[in-house]
Amino acid sequence: MPRLTEYKDMNPRAKTVVGGIAAARGIDPADINNVWKALARHPAVMEQFAGEMREAFAPGELDPLTKELVYLAVSIANQCDYCIASHGTMARKKGMTDEMHEEFMRVVLAAMKGNKIASAYRVPVDQAFEEA
Amino acid sequence: MPRLTEYKDMNPRAKTVVGGIAAARGIDPADINNVWKALARHPAVMEQFAGEMREAFAPGELDPLTKELVYLAVSIANQCDYCIASHGTMARKKGMTDEMHEEFMRVVLAAMKGNKIASAYRVPVDQAFEEA
Amino acid sequence: MPRLTEYKDMNPRAKTVVGGIAAARGIDPADINNVWKALARHPAVMEQFAGEMREAFAPGELDPLTKELVYLAVSIANQCDYCIASHGTMARKKGMTDEMHEEFMRVVLAAMKGNKIASAYRVPVDQAFEEA
Amino acid sequence: MPRLTEYKDMNPRAKTVVGGIAAARGIDPADINNVWKALARHPAVMEQFAGEMREAFAPGELDPLTKELVYLAVSIANQCDYCIASHGTMARKKGMTDEMHEEFMRVVLAAMKGNKIASAYRVPVDQAFEEA
Amino acid sequence: MPRLTEYKDMNPRAKTVVGGIAAARGIDPADINNVWKALARHPAVMEQFAGEMREAFAPGELDPLTKELVYLAVSIANQCDYCIASHGTMARKKGMTDEMHEEFMRVVLAAMKGNKIASAYRVPVDQAFEEA
Amino acid sequence: MPRLTEYKDMNPRAKTVVGGIAAARGIDPADINNVWKALARHPAVMEQFAGEMREAFAPGELDPLTKELVYLAVSIANQCDYCIASHGTMARKKGMTDEMHEEFMRVVLAAMKGNKIASAYRVPVDQAFEEA
Repeated sequence: MPRLTEYKDMNPRAKTVVGGIAAARGIDPADINNVWKALARHPAVMEQFAGEMREAFAPGELDPLTKELVYLAVSIANQCDYCIASHGTMARKKGMTDEMHEEFMRVVLAAMKGNKIASAYRVPVDQAFEEA
Repeated sequence: MPRLTEYKDMNPRAKTVVGGIAAARGIDPADINNVWKALARHPAVMEQFAGEMREAFAPGELDPLTKELVYLAVSIANQCDYCIASHGTMARKKGMTDEMHEEFMRVVLAAMKGNKIASAYRVPVDQAFEEA
Repeated sequence: MPRLTEYKDMNPRAKTVVGGIAAARGIDPADINNVWKALARHPAVMEQFAGEMREAFAPGELDPLTKELVYLAVSIANQCDYCIASHGTMARKKGMTDEMHEEFMRVVLAAMKGNKIASAYRVPVDQAFEEA
Repeated sequence: MPRLTEYKDMNPRAKTVVGGIAAARGIDPADINNVWKALARHPAVMEQFAGEMREAFAPGELDPLTKELVYLAVSIANQCDYCIASHGTMARKKGMTDEMHEEFMRVVLAAMKGNKIASAYRVPVDQAFEEA
Repeated sequence: MPRLTEYKDMNPRAKTVVGGIAAARGIDPADINNVWKALARHPAVMEQFAGEMREAFAPGELDPLTKELVYLAVSIANQCDYCIASHGTMARKKGMTDEMHEEFMRVVLAAMKGNKIASAYRVPVDQAFEEA
Repeated sequence: MPRLTEYKDMNPRAKTVVGGIAAARGIDPADINNVWKALARHPAVMEQFAGEMREAFAPGELDPLTKELVYLAVSIANQCDYCIASHGTMARKKGMTDEMHEEFMRVVLAAMKGNKIASAYRVPVDQAFEEA
């Protein structure tokens, strides 16, 4: 049983999900990326994740690139190789330049350091932040 | 030996670091937040972290709020309470509205889900992302 | 020096461990899975882990499939590819159906979300839970 | 601005969510637990999480206690104090005995060890698991 | 039901474990630290963890302080507040000076950065390391 | 665009960094390991990380092998495959014997267990550790 299911072999529920994503991105459903081919035999999880992604990236106050950077930051913190590869690519498509990537990485790495420093030195939360 | 050192009791190296941060933020050094009071007796780590933060948040291609959101995203992924409290407050000060925070959280939570889905279903990276 | 040691090439301590596991599973020791081949040159860790696994999966109040699901849940949270592959296979052998897997994944993903929400919104523990 | 909003002070969207949870659990909405009081001012995240939890714990192939143990296992792996306190309590209510808890913890701890062993010794996935 | 059980109120199995630890440390069993008071009602986990700790810290090739630093490094990576507080204290007792602590923290923080860089830039393992 | 840049194709800033590392290690810059080839097009992150590593491993109170073990412990906790492969090799070069590796792993695994026990049983920090 292959781990990935191609679009033409998907069940109707999966085809509906992939068709919607492909239409929104303006691509051929056959070119959908692997995460959706992997989820094709898991319809409940697939539909839920597709819905959550659609809502998360729906137009709003934050611009599309900022959202990609937030997604990528979480993926680096979690060391998810697939997510770094895919959303790194998407961030590029949405306008991330080399300079932006460099700045982004410096903030991510500073945050990693700040997180571990706060734990290692057991820093109590300032009263000013508690009341905020 | 108290875990936090007030500015007036800091050694010269720590006072220099805190003085620089306070000047950049336009606050009184005595009002510096706890992470710096906790680092005051650890000068090498303190100076390195202060320098890294200053460079990470220096003006550049990404706007200050985007950088705060990236920092906050990493801190939520790492479940760092101090960092969430402090950088959540700073994000508010730099313009994060309730609506932005809601959108931000939806992206963070979608990323958490995507990260775990990619692992749980063992999704291989698409060739298109490898070549990017 | 190869990373994996085949059963026939293992030292006596490793052979004893693998022999015991193979007998309990009713398989040929030569077909032992890779984690034990990798541990074969690390006898103290190998014996300790084998003993801990044997005790953890010994018959008791919780049925074998429930234990596999708990093991798999931890492995997904930690994004351990080897463990997801091996214990996912074992869960199937112990009776996990597609429907059960789908339900299981929804709980795992809901838990991931709940964990990050509790941190991101800094939720204090209810007094009722403290006293439990 | 307090971090927790009591039921009587919630906006209509939040009241609807909490009313539904309270009805399903047979409790007074005023006794809802803190995570919902913390989410009350974040309606989009609140509604999504409430829906995801309801679906994850809907009757199905896996019994309610198994689902609680899976949730608890993820929460321990992620070290989420709030989630451990709340879902530990719920697992007790759904029938977890001291003996079950002990067995559960042994599996969780064995999984943690297995996860780190697989990484530390860089164990490649068995072909048999790849094809599963 | 209190979360912590004092030595005088422990069951015989727990008293045996705590008695052994106290004797090895040369302290009064009544002064045992909280982790053991918390485990007192969970005898199987307690005995296993006590045995594992005893073996891990038994005299060997690595000196006691090096072992404490390794334990502390893992605890900081995992952001375990209890473990950082307890093993930080033990490292001091075993000879960690302020200077050593500073050097230790720099290595821990450099490792955190190296770990995230390797993931973020998707660095493939060198052939030389594969063969090692 | 290849993910790795060979020394001969690096820009001047990257060549300076790699040249310095190679000189310190007594190797040919062409034999630099992959993490630096991957960072070659990201000069700001590269220079910062190279500086942080140089300072972390500069001669001091802790011996070089202890520092490698601390680095490796963090990398195992974070499950960073590249870092485990590279720093495991370096630890061997700096004197780690099989016996030391076995002891090291037992401490790492005991720490992982202790970290999760402290969370799962919600152990409060002892007053004695708070005052330390």
